[in-house]
Amino acid sequence: MEKFEVNILGCGSAVPTIQHFPAAQVVNVREKLFMIDCGEGAQHQFRKMRLKFQSLGHIFISHLHGDHFFGLPGLISTFGMLGRTADMHIHAHRDLEALLKPVLDYCCKGMDYKVIFDPLPEEVYQKPCLIYEDRSLTVHTIPLRHRMPSCGFLFREKPLLPHIRRDMIDFLQIPSTRIAAIKAGEGWTTEEGDFYPNERLVTPADPPRAYAYCSDTYHEATFSEELAPRAEQTQHSTARQAAEVAKAAGAKRLLIGHYSKRYTDSTVLLNEARAVFPDTLAANEGLCIQV
Amino acid sequence: MEKFEVNILGCGSAVPTIQHFPAAQVVNVREKLFMIDCGEGAQHQFRKMRLKFQSLGHIFISHLHGDHFFGLPGLISTFGMLGRTADMHIHAHRDLEALLKPVLDYCCKGMDYKVIFDPLPEEVYQKPCLIYEDRSLTVHTIPLRHRMPSCGFLFREKPLLPHIRRDMIDFLQIPSTRIAAIKAGEGWTTEEGDFYPNERLVTPADPPRAYAYCSDTYHEATFSEELAPRAEQTQHSTARQAAEVAKAAGAKRLLIGHYSKRYTDSTVLLNEARAVFPDTLAANEGLCIQV
Repeated sequence: MEKFEVNILGCGSAVPTIQHFPAAQVVNVREKLFMIDCGEGAQHQFRKMRLKFQSLGHIFISHLHGDHFFGLPGLISTFGMLGRTADMHIHAHRDLEALLKPVLDYCCKGMDYKVIFDPLPEEVYQKPCLIYEDRSLTVHTIPLRHRMPSCGFLFREKPLLPHIRRDMIDFLQIPSTRIAAIKAGEGWTTEEGDFYPNERLVTPADPPRAYAYCSDTYHEATFSEELAPRAEQTQHSTARQAAEVAKAAGAKRLLIGHYSKRYTDSTVLLNEARAVFPDTLAANEGLCIQV
Repeated sequence: MEKFEVNILGCGSAVPTIQHFPAAQVVNVREKLFMIDCGEGAQHQFRKMRLKFQSLGHIFISHLHGDHFFGLPGLISTFGMLGRTADMHIHAHRDLEALLKPVLDYCCKGMDYKVIFDPLPEEVYQKPCLIYEDRSLTVHTIPLRHRMPSCGFLFREKPLLPHIRRDMIDFLQIPSTRIAAIKAGEGWTTEEGDFYPNERLVTPADPPRAYAYCSDTYHEATFSEELAPRAEQTQHSTARQAAEVAKAAGAKRLLIGHYSKRYTDSTVLLNEARAVFPDTLAANEGLCIQV
């Protein structure tokens, strides 16, 4: 299977603790990296996890509380010093550019790459919107209710092609030039005139995978069936709520994080969530999860 | 002896590495804390070293490269969340306030304490200036040559009072109400009319201690005799230079830091400096040095 991983750079909440860094994750989809939130220290954790800074092209910021974006100036200026040349897109509330412009103008002059602010459209706070798309992936926003305009992000693979049945291809001596057409749905007629329909030549595609990030807030989005939502909550009463949302959404797995500083270990939160939704994981700095 | 300590929160240079955080130190003089530089992650290290956030009243920023101040927004907003009420003074180049104002206005509204920017006077880049003083301490700037306006900071104890000779006080039955006057220089006449001059009643004061911070730059200041200067240099050729400056200045001890990312351990730098100036220490995160 193609790579689809989530790397936890930070899973603390606003007040940092000795155990945790503030929010930051890196989603790796087929070696393209996407950062979600960029709390202070994200660049440190990024390098510690040996992620490739050239492969990161897009950063998504869920909302403008400091613990979700104070790592940006350091990350941006470090990438400049490391000689990055490719554009970097920052998808965030439209206010962010004005907040960072004075610092970036002062400290990041003459870099060899451009930082492009892509303000999120206003509708993201009311309904899901497509904000990124490439050949194999879409990113939609998830509207969230929080103390300030906030959204989550849903990373979803595009429908995958079916698997070729190598045994049938060999048996029927189908030339390799026809493989793409067969993956796209065609059948095959032998020289003797026997027709083999497509479903005899392929096995079904893997179901597309998805990852939903819902940061320190209550959900109001419901997820579709294939999703592995992540509920980040600050208080222990909401670890159970995250689990209830995951259950209602038919998620495969739940990852909890954004721990309040009152917890020196996450076991109590994990147990609470698992009572409702057994396949729950507790995030931790350095964790890498295969979706 | 009263406390005079230097805590190393970060001693890396601009490009962060897995080993080091960017520049930040906390000087503790009799339980008053003073921060020097505030690189990204300083608040994390501050808490990790279990320093008391209520005791930090002044932050000194040597220059406006990002690795020396990107930790300020996070530190300021965290202190707000922790319920700080006392004013916080930031001594820095006058441009800093305008750089941080948009972020602080947006993210640190309604805090219970005030952040006061004390712009360094223009003369600090030409000559030493007194920028802080209290009952027991002065802080002077040290002009430095660097790519942008930069200064170091010299923390110096005020002259201390002599020690009372307890044996003489007891023998002469001098009342405790006279102790302050004797510490200030007075003698004592017994009921029989015998005069004891001050020098028979006290032993000399400890020599005042001092700590000089000279960040990633070449010195052009010379230090007075009692100082323990710190030269922070980025390149291995300058570890020796730092040692030469320390030697010429008659320093007691040299602390090197601000390591370039090319060094995975600081031994080579340390050995180079020690060849010239034996009492050299290598800074490391978490290190606490008694001055």
